[in-house]
Amino acid sequence: MALVVIGGVAAGLSAAARARRIDPRLEIVVLEKGPVISYGACGLPYFVEGRVREAKDLVVYTPEYFRRERKIEVRTGARAVSISHPRREVVLESGERVRYDRLVIATGARCDTSGIAGADQPHVFTLHTLGDAERLRRFIAEKQPRRAVVVGAGYIGVEAADALRRHGLGVTVLERSAHALLRDDADFTAAVRKTLEQHGVELRCGVEVTAVEAERVAGVPCDLVVLACGFRPNTAMAAEAGVELGRFGGIRTDDRMQTNLTGVYAAGDCAEVTHLVTGRPTYIPLGTTANKTGRVAGANASGARERFPGIVGTSIVGIFGTGFATTGFSAVQAKAEGFSPVRARIEGPARPRYFQGTKTVVELVADRATGRLIGGSVIGEEGAAGRINVIAAALHNRMRVDDFEQLDLAYSPPFSPVWDPLLIAAQQLKKEL
Amino acid sequence: MALVVIGGVAAGLSAAARARRIDPRLEIVVLEKGPVISYGACGLPYFVEGRVREAKDLVVYTPEYFRRERKIEVRTGARAVSISHPRREVVLESGERVRYDRLVIATGARCDTSGIAGADQPHVFTLHTLGDAERLRRFIAEKQPRRAVVVGAGYIGVEAADALRRHGLGVTVLERSAHALLRDDADFTAAVRKTLEQHGVELRCGVEVTAVEAERVAGVPCDLVVLACGFRPNTAMAAEAGVELGRFGGIRTDDRMQTNLTGVYAAGDCAEVTHLVTGRPTYIPLGTTANKTGRVAGANASGARERFPGIVGTSIVGIFGTGFATTGFSAVQAKAEGFSPVRARIEGPARPRYFQGTKTVVELVADRATGRLIGGSVIGEEGAAGRINVIAAALHNRMRVDDFEQLDLAYSPPFSPVWDPLLIAAQQLKKEL
Repeated sequence: MALVVIGGVAAGLSAAARARRIDPRLEIVVLEKGPVISYGACGLPYFVEGRVREAKDLVVYTPEYFRRERKIEVRTGARAVSISHPRREVVLESGERVRYDRLVIATGARCDTSGIAGADQPHVFTLHTLGDAERLRRFIAEKQPRRAVVVGAGYIGVEAADALRRHGLGVTVLERSAHALLRDDADFTAAVRKTLEQHGVELRCGVEVTAVEAERVAGVPCDLVVLACGFRPNTAMAAEAGVELGRFGGIRTDDRMQTNLTGVYAAGDCAEVTHLVTGRPTYIPLGTTANKTGRVAGANASGARERFPGIVGTSIVGIFGTGFATTGFSAVQAKAEGFSPVRARIEGPARPRYFQGTKTVVELVADRATGRLIGGSVIGEEGAAGRINVIAAALHNRMRVDDFEQLDLAYSPPFSPVWDPLLIAAQQLKKEL
Repeated sequence: MALVVIGGVAAGLSAAARARRIDPRLEIVVLEKGPVISYGACGLPYFVEGRVREAKDLVVYTPEYFRRERKIEVRTGARAVSISHPRREVVLESGERVRYDRLVIATGARCDTSGIAGADQPHVFTLHTLGDAERLRRFIAEKQPRRAVVVGAGYIGVEAADALRRHGLGVTVLERSAHALLRDDADFTAAVRKTLEQHGVELRCGVEVTAVEAERVAGVPCDLVVLACGFRPNTAMAAEAGVELGRFGGIRTDDRMQTNLTGVYAAGDCAEVTHLVTGRPTYIPLGTTANKTGRVAGANASGARERFPGIVGTSIVGIFGTGFATTGFSAVQAKAEGFSPVRARIEGPARPRYFQGTKTVVELVADRATGRLIGGSVIGEEGAAGRINVIAAALHNRMRVDDFEQLDLAYSPPFSPVWDPLLIAAQQLKKEL
C-alpha cells in the first residue's frame, strides 16, 4: 500500500506522520513543491519583524528527520501538476509519475494577485512562504524603505503592518471590504483601527486595489508593498482530476476528510469543512484546522476510522500587544446565515480594579429563536485567547446563554475579576433576548 | 414584603442587589456583623503583601452607597444570633428583632481554630476578614517578624505564604493532609512544593497542628503564625432554626437556592450546591459561587424564578507568578466519587518554541466507562486561567475526550502553539482510554 501526500507543510505532514503511526508498513511519500517543509507559516510576520531571528527557527522538521525517524520519503522541489485518479498516479512537473493507493491533497491556499497590475515589481511582496518572508526581510535591510502599503486587512495583512511599523516604516493598510480581520462587525473593526492608529498605522477600508504603481498604491505613496489579499484554496489540479469543490472553491470533504473520489482525501487550506454553528460547509483556512484535518485525513487514509466534526471559526491576532479574537459569527454574519441575532457588548477589567486590570471588551451573539450562543469576540491585552476559547467551547456544545452565564470559571485576583467579563456579557445578553 | 439578608459580603450583597433590581418596592435589610461590607475577601493576601496598598481599595461599596443608590438598608455591627422562623424574625445580639417575609442566609464560613491550643496569642492570626488582614499587616510592620508558620496549604494558606515571603520572612507551611490546594493529586502537590521551594518556602504535608507554642509550631521556630485552616460553613444559627444541613455541614439548597424552610434561602460559603460532574451536593466555598448563588437566591426571594445549576469546582491560585488551576476531580478524587478514572499529564510550551513559550502542565481526567472528561488541572506562568476555563466549560457540557480533542481553539504565535497543550493532553488521554 502506498500513500502519497501532496503538500509538505502543516496538513500534509500531519497526515503523513499520523498515517505512519497507524500503519508502520505503509509506503508514504510526501511531495512538496517548495525547497523546505514543515515551517510555521503563521510565524512568517514575526520573522519579518525580527522577533523570530532566523528562518530556520521556523522550520520544525527536515526531510532527513522524516526519512530517518518516521520512514517517510519527503521530496522537496517536487511539484505535482496533475492527478490521474483512474491510474492512481500523481504526475510531477518533471514528467515523473508517482503511484498511489491512497492520496491526501494538502495543496494549501495561494495568493491570487492576478487581478493586480504591477504585482511583479521588485518592491512588491506576498507573505505566503518562507522564501517570501526571507526576500521581504532582505529588502527591508538592504533598501531601507520608509513607507509601506499593505493590501488586505486580514490576519496576515494586519500582522505584516505591525511588523513593518516596528521596523520604523510608515504603514497604510488598504482593505477592500468595510471591515478588518474578516469580521463583519463595525465595532470590532473600529477597535482594530483604533489600536493600529495609536501605533501610527492607518487603516483604510472600502479600497479595492487593482494596480500597484512604481511609487504609490491607490494614491498612497510607498516604496514597499505587501499583498496580503486574494487568498484562494489551491484546488485547480484537484478539480481537473474530478475532485468536487464546494461553494467557496475549496475541496468538499466528508467528516472523514474524504473527497468524492474513493481513497482521495483533502486537508488544510485547500479544503472546506463543516461549520459547527450552522452545520454547513465553510472555508476558513487556519493553521489549527490544517493540522487537525491533516491528522484525520492521514488516519483514515491509512486504515483507521477517525472523524473531524468541524470548526467554529476561532482565531486570534495580536496587534501591538493586544489580542483581537473572534469565534462563530458576528451579528451581521449571523443574520446572513439565517439566524435572528441578538448581541451584547461589554467592557470590563481583565482583573479586579485593585489589581490594575486592563480593559477587556467582550461581545456575545445569540440566536433569538433558540437562546443559543452563535458567536463572540474578545479584545484585550490579557486573557483574550483564554476567553475566546471558552466561547469556542460553548459553541462546540451548542450552549445556551443562560447556561453560559452560570459557567464556573476560575477566579483569583491576579488572574480575573470575580465576575469574569464573559459572564457579565452573558448577563447583558440575557436581558436582550 | 420584607427581605432580610444575613451577611453583607459577597453572597449577601449580591442577593440584596439582585432582589432590588427585580422588585423596586421590596423592603430590603442586610444585617452584617462586622464593621464593613462588600470587600474583596479574596484580595486579603494581596493586602497583606502590600500589592493592594490600602484596606479601602478592597471595599467595593459602602452602606451609604446601598442606602442611597439601591434603597437597601445595610446595618453593620448587626450580629444575628437566632432565627425564629415560625415568627419570621431574626434576633440580633442586641435583643432587637427584625421581621422578614423572605430570608437569605449568607453567613459565610468561619475559621474554626478551637482545636488549636494557643491560637489566641498576639502573634497568631487568621486571614478571614478585612480586620484580620489589617492586624496582620500592622504586626509585620511593627514587630518585624523573621520566621512565619502558615497552618494549612489551601488557597489562603499558600497565598499568605507567598505574601509573607515577599516581606522577606522565612516561611514554612504545615498541612494536615498529604496534598496542597485541596487537590488530592501527588503530581500537582509536587509542583506546588517545587514552586514554593524555588522561592524559599517550605511545605510540610501530613502535619496536624494541635497547639501553637510561644516560639514554635510543630517544632518549627517562628515569631508569626497564620492559621489558614479549619474552614467550616457558618451554619449553627441556621441549624438551630430548623434549616437542614448536608453531609458537608453546609446548608442544603435546591436549584433555586431555597432551603427546606419556605421562603428561606441560603447562598455563598454557608451553602452546599450541586456538583455538576457527579450531580450530588458538594461544599466548595469560593467567591465566584458566592456571587452567583447570592444572585439567584436574591432573584427567587424577590419573586423571580431563576436557577443555579451547580458548579464544577474551578479554581486558580497564583504562587510566585505561576498559576495553579484545577477543575472537577483529580484521578484519586474521581475514584472516591465512584468513577473509573483515566488520566494523562503532559508538558508543553504555552507558545511556539520560536516564541519562547514557558512550560505549561496540563492534566486531564476522564471516566473510562463513558469517555467523559471529569477533571483537569493546568499549571503555568501564562494562560493557566484561560485553559482551566476551557476544561470547566467542557465539564459543564459533559464533553467526551474525543470531542474535546477537536476543539477549535485560537492560535497565533504570540498567544499559543498550533497544538494547544489542552489538545495534546486530550490526544494522550484518548490513547489511555
